[in-house]
Amino acid sequence: MFSIPKIISRTACIFYMLFFSIIISAQTPADFVNPFIGTSNYGAAFPGPIAPRGMASISPFNVAGVKNTPMEKDSQWLSNPYVNENTFLTGFSQVNLSGVGCPELGVILLMPTTGEVQIDHLKYGSTYSNEMAKAGYYSVDINKYKVKGEFTASKRVGVSRFTFPKGQSNILLNLGLGLTNEEGAMVRVVSSTEIEGMRSVGSFCYNSPEDAYPVYFAAKFSKPADKFGVWKKPSKYNGVEAQWMGYNGKARMMENTIKTVVGDSIGSYFRYNFDKEETVEVKIGISYVSIENAHENLEKEVGNKSFDAVYKETYDEWNEELSKISVEGGSKDDKTIFYTALYHTLIHPNILNDCNGEYPVIKRSKIGKTDGTRYTVFSLWDTYRNLHQLMSLVYPKQQSDMVKSMLDMFDENSWLPKWELNSTETFTMVGDPASIVITDTYLKGIHDFDVQKAYYAMLKGADQIENNPLRPGLKDYIKKGYLTTDSKGPVSTTQEYNISDYCISLMANEFGDKANVKRFKNRSLSYRKLFDKKLNLLRPRIANGNWYEPFDPNSGANFEENVGFIEGNAWQYAFMVPHDINGLKKLMGGDKAFSAQLQKIFDIKQFDMANEPDIANPYLFNYVKGEEYKAQEMVKKLVREYFKNEPKGLPGNDDTGTMSAWLVYSMMGIYPISPGDPIYTITTPMFDKVTIKLDSKYYKNESIVIEKEVNNDGKIKAIQLNGKALNSYFISHEDLVNGKTLKVIQN
Amino acid sequence: MFSIPKIISRTACIFYMLFFSIIISAQTPADFVNPFIGTSNYGAAFPGPIAPRGMASISPFNVAGVKNTPMEKDSQWLSNPYVNENTFLTGFSQVNLSGVGCPELGVILLMPTTGEVQIDHLKYGSTYSNEMAKAGYYSVDINKYKVKGEFTASKRVGVSRFTFPKGQSNILLNLGLGLTNEEGAMVRVVSSTEIEGMRSVGSFCYNSPEDAYPVYFAAKFSKPADKFGVWKKPSKYNGVEAQWMGYNGKARMMENTIKTVVGDSIGSYFRYNFDKEETVEVKIGISYVSIENAHENLEKEVGNKSFDAVYKETYDEWNEELSKISVEGGSKDDKTIFYTALYHTLIHPNILNDCNGEYPVIKRSKIGKTDGTRYTVFSLWDTYRNLHQLMSLVYPKQQSDMVKSMLDMFDENSWLPKWELNSTETFTMVGDPASIVITDTYLKGIHDFDVQKAYYAMLKGADQIENNPLRPGLKDYIKKGYLTTDSKGPVSTTQEYNISDYCISLMANEFGDKANVKRFKNRSLSYRKLFDKKLNLLRPRIANGNWYEPFDPNSGANFEENVGFIEGNAWQYAFMVPHDINGLKKLMGGDKAFSAQLQKIFDIKQFDMANEPDIANPYLFNYVKGEEYKAQEMVKKLVREYFKNEPKGLPGNDDTGTMSAWLVYSMMGIYPISPGDPIYTITTPMFDKVTIKLDSKYYKNESIVIEKEVNNDGKIKAIQLNGKALNSYFISHEDLVNGKTLKVIQN
Repeated sequence: MFSIPKIISRTACIFYMLFFSIIISAQTPADFVNPFIGTSNYGAAFPGPIAPRGMASISPFNVAGVKNTPMEKDSQWLSNPYVNENTFLTGFSQVNLSGVGCPELGVILLMPTTGEVQIDHLKYGSTYSNEMAKAGYYSVDINKYKVKGEFTASKRVGVSRFTFPKGQSNILLNLGLGLTNEEGAMVRVVSSTEIEGMRSVGSFCYNSPEDAYPVYFAAKFSKPADKFGVWKKPSKYNGVEAQWMGYNGKARMMENTIKTVVGDSIGSYFRYNFDKEETVEVKIGISYVSIENAHENLEKEVGNKSFDAVYKETYDEWNEELSKISVEGGSKDDKTIFYTALYHTLIHPNILNDCNGEYPVIKRSKIGKTDGTRYTVFSLWDTYRNLHQLMSLVYPKQQSDMVKSMLDMFDENSWLPKWELNSTETFTMVGDPASIVITDTYLKGIHDFDVQKAYYAMLKGADQIENNPLRPGLKDYIKKGYLTTDSKGPVSTTQEYNISDYCISLMANEFGDKANVKRFKNRSLSYRKLFDKKLNLLRPRIANGNWYEPFDPNSGANFEENVGFIEGNAWQYAFMVPHDINGLKKLMGGDKAFSAQLQKIFDIKQFDMANEPDIANPYLFNYVKGEEYKAQEMVKKLVREYFKNEPKGLPGNDDTGTMSAWLVYSMMGIYPISPGDPIYTITTPMFDKVTIKLDSKYYKNESIVIEKEVNNDGKIKAIQLNGKALNSYFISHEDLVNGKTLKVIQN
Repeated sequence: MFSIPKIISRTACIFYMLFFSIIISAQTPADFVNPFIGTSNYGAAFPGPIAPRGMASISPFNVAGVKNTPMEKDSQWLSNPYVNENTFLTGFSQVNLSGVGCPELGVILLMPTTGEVQIDHLKYGSTYSNEMAKAGYYSVDINKYKVKGEFTASKRVGVSRFTFPKGQSNILLNLGLGLTNEEGAMVRVVSSTEIEGMRSVGSFCYNSPEDAYPVYFAAKFSKPADKFGVWKKPSKYNGVEAQWMGYNGKARMMENTIKTVVGDSIGSYFRYNFDKEETVEVKIGISYVSIENAHENLEKEVGNKSFDAVYKETYDEWNEELSKISVEGGSKDDKTIFYTALYHTLIHPNILNDCNGEYPVIKRSKIGKTDGTRYTVFSLWDTYRNLHQLMSLVYPKQQSDMVKSMLDMFDENSWLPKWELNSTETFTMVGDPASIVITDTYLKGIHDFDVQKAYYAMLKGADQIENNPLRPGLKDYIKKGYLTTDSKGPVSTTQEYNISDYCISLMANEFGDKANVKRFKNRSLSYRKLFDKKLNLLRPRIANGNWYEPFDPNSGANFEENVGFIEGNAWQYAFMVPHDINGLKKLMGGDKAFSAQLQKIFDIKQFDMANEPDIANPYLFNYVKGEEYKAQEMVKKLVREYFKNEPKGLPGNDDTGTMSAWLVYSMMGIYPISPGDPIYTITTPMFDKVTIKLDSKYYKNESIVIEKEVNNDGKIKAIQLNGKALNSYFISHEDLVNGKTLKVIQN
């Protein structure tokens, strides 16, 4: 049931009709997306609109309230522009990251107000109500001003629609306030319908501050402002002349000016005097290249299209992307968490290039140009584990373009990316994950990239001992087989290098490069030197080779810094050797000991669903014959416990879709258990039937179906591929995509 | 005698030949210009190159040394980028004001260094030697780096040439450091030969901070940089995350990047590695409209012209302008102070419009366009007294364009300018001086402007009582005839309004507007109500009409703030009623009392040659029959005492050429004694013969000659116009320009 307010403009009415017609026919995948999932519990998702892999997005910005209140951006580590529990709204940011762990972007804040212009966000901020979020659409009532805000976005353009009451109204564009810790902006009002400028962002995770970079924008308003202006709160001048500067450090209101203004704390405002309720649409084009390109993106992508038309296109695009997987059976909540997770995997990596193909190369030494898509936001330490595997299976063209983008980065920067963000290499986290992603992609049959270059780049990262930004500690690693406590997180980094080296050996095999097959295979097993039989765990060694003492395997839980591991402890990293599970079993003393240790991690609550190192753990029971049911049970339990149709419905940071990709795979009943190896391990799907459409450019079959016998919580008793028994809880990518139906039969 | 260093590049050699050929044939007016005059004793002139009325100029910047040292810009009130006594050079600023009293511009600092890049001016700064300054040329050796810097300028482009020794060399473009108290800049390296950006300036004299404005620039280097970069010293981030920001508030070096960087403390550097001595030329185009226009100015005005070619053109242009007056007789120093003074009168007002005619309108609400010249930098409280009179006589086309610019400002801002600076109205000083300048211009026969509009604008400024930014206190003034101590500087402001009103009455007379002739004539005499017969001085009254008590006529010397007067005291303002000297005489009790009081001011050392209110005083003896010799003696004495061929050779602030215009007139033997009235009073010229070329568009004669009988310090015994006795120490403008020879015959 719904009611339409009696006094409603014609445009709004048409929109409501369109909107509710979508609701009423709510059967398409996009309708199951609930963008509020992950907006609490540090999920770091935002509820506002974004197009698939869009550069622009809009998020309500509610993390800048009074200092030293909970979830206030400057009073704690907070990496998201929106927290569902918060109540104080100070604008709508036009570029945002989803599911990351450090504050970045969340800038160019648009805010409607009424009455006199007030530029202090603590004063102009408002509570809000009636939030509604859909794929590509968000709306909210801004209580203080009785203004309704609606938002949608195309790939490079955010579109906002404000419905103002009669009277004095303002639209602020605040370029000071933002989530990023960087400061500095420029703004120029071009005319009474246009603003342009830039905002400095960067220093993601407090790395590479010298690579802080500009995001450019161009804003177009559907109605000419009656008055406009720019504000600036300059920093305080020190010097003897300060005594004559009554205005020293005070905010300045600069009316009706088209001059360029720069500063840390600046913004502009458009002012209207409405004699009846009126709507204003604001279109903001984004570019990482130039203001000109931001204008061009705005014109080419949106131009004079209405808000509703833009929303319709983005909604359709979401539907098209999400429809690559269709599910049958399962509850509405199941479908919601599934499609929202898939939606989250389609946000990052995102496009970086403008409509004209231009993008800044790594470190911004020049402007590059592409005929295809340049992707950015590669959180590879996270995403190498499952997200790219999902892309290779469902969106192979996108995955191919992502690999091409990574190779372009190598051309530009001489190194493959580690944690690339808008053409800055942030060097966040550890390891050499690009090699894993490339190998995984290639071995899944996606070959339309320069694999020679890729192999060269992988070897360079693996072998160049001096001045190697990707693999610090490489000298020790090659010489001793492991990093010592002289390096940061020596055990976990050794494990990361091992996995990369394993992938390089797989790639060497493709090239018939036998020496490197052997060499890197050997290197990939060196973690074994860190296995402490007494503890049945991996343990750091000091420079002379002795064990690090005293060693507490529990130390390092909850992201606590510790000597051996990055973002985790010995328990969480105990099984992170996906390429050598059988070797690990032997080290641990065979199947039984392995299984017991694996179970123990869950029992003593050292399993961490909220971070990547151990997220494959529940599937590892599949390596122990007869214990596969534990994998089935554990995966289901974790899905039910951590993934819900509510703001807290992600276990923690989504990590640019990695947690979501885990859920998508887990609900489909398969999981890419060993990154680089083109295999999946199998558990019970959570839908009756899952149909994955395959891209005919890469796969010969039209689709692959995963189904289970109806509604039964029993253990798997048989698995069939095309009706023939599989006799394994593992299936190769090739068999899967060339099969037609994978059927899971339960007791 | 001069010697050329043995190792010298071919280009340099050609230049030296050119340069010294100019020196050797040193007979032209431009060769007499000594730009060092006025660079000490707060003259506020700068020694670097500028073209006549140029927008761009280059000054060595030596006022930013260690804090709390003498003449350091932040340790005292200092309004100039260069002080002759200073020794610590930190760059060459590309936009500068000459002879003003408040710090402004002095930004976009170019600085050559060698070795590693050092961005802290206290560290990269250097002593210097071998300064040479000419009209349009300045050179200096930068000791620390053994770099020779040479500088010239066209109207909108500064051209620098650096001769570097072999080795690592750098050219810094510092956008943080500057003379202005404003901060904020943007920079982008376009390529290895180009940089562009903007710098915020403004808040001149601590007024109108909201009108702070951008100066845009485009820089082109003759040699591609081997490396380039941008630096930024961001402000310190406050917040809980600061603990992870090891880089918090620290300077960042951003190499090889073309990204836009904004901030208060930023700059860029070009880096070279020379295997022999090399020169690099840097051309910097300026615009107050846009970066694009700065590029266009650079290309259209200079393009690929060599340094020497640009210098030659500017030198020729100076010669052409300065040759409008030729002098015979007099010492070399006399010619030097004379032509340097004339040079100073040709710096401001300066052009504001770009090559394409565009300029920002007042308050920058839009971009205007002109087919002619838009002038800016109108320090009218100073210049209404003599500078515009000199322009009307010698450069009437320029004066006409200045009036047109003032009327355009009225169109844009609804008010005539008071102290206009790069399209900001700074509201510095008091009075309504534009009316005086316009009247003076019109009554000198320069009629090619919209005089109807001018008259309307003058009346508006004079009569609009509410919200009148030009004439605060107008209500009291009209009602009581004077401002009371409720207003700032009530006596002097009353005097200013009187002079303006007198001019309006003259203008009303031209229109046959009899009522206003009478009304404004009456208003112009209201100062008389402030005449205190006991003191024989003007004196402030309080709101109820009583005299302000206790009153000290001496209070207010040396710019000390006081109750009655702006920048002066009762002595200095005692005679500032140029339109009513005979009335003043009567108030004082006749010729004798008048003369005694006038003499007293000199005797008790209350005459201030360094500021405008009393600079006509020495000429006032001409109003007392038989005492004209005192004017002759006093003028000569003051010229000799205060104006010299040395850095201290101006009495104080040149006030955008007002002091210099005083000197030019005084040395020619005539002075425009009553602003608005087209008359001159006569003393002894300091040259044997002065020939002023007249502009045929405005005057029928080709020239007017002022001559004296040879070399005689005696009193004037006769004055002849075209051989006929003049019988007066006054001559109308009409008689002067229509005469051919004004001859002063001495005892």
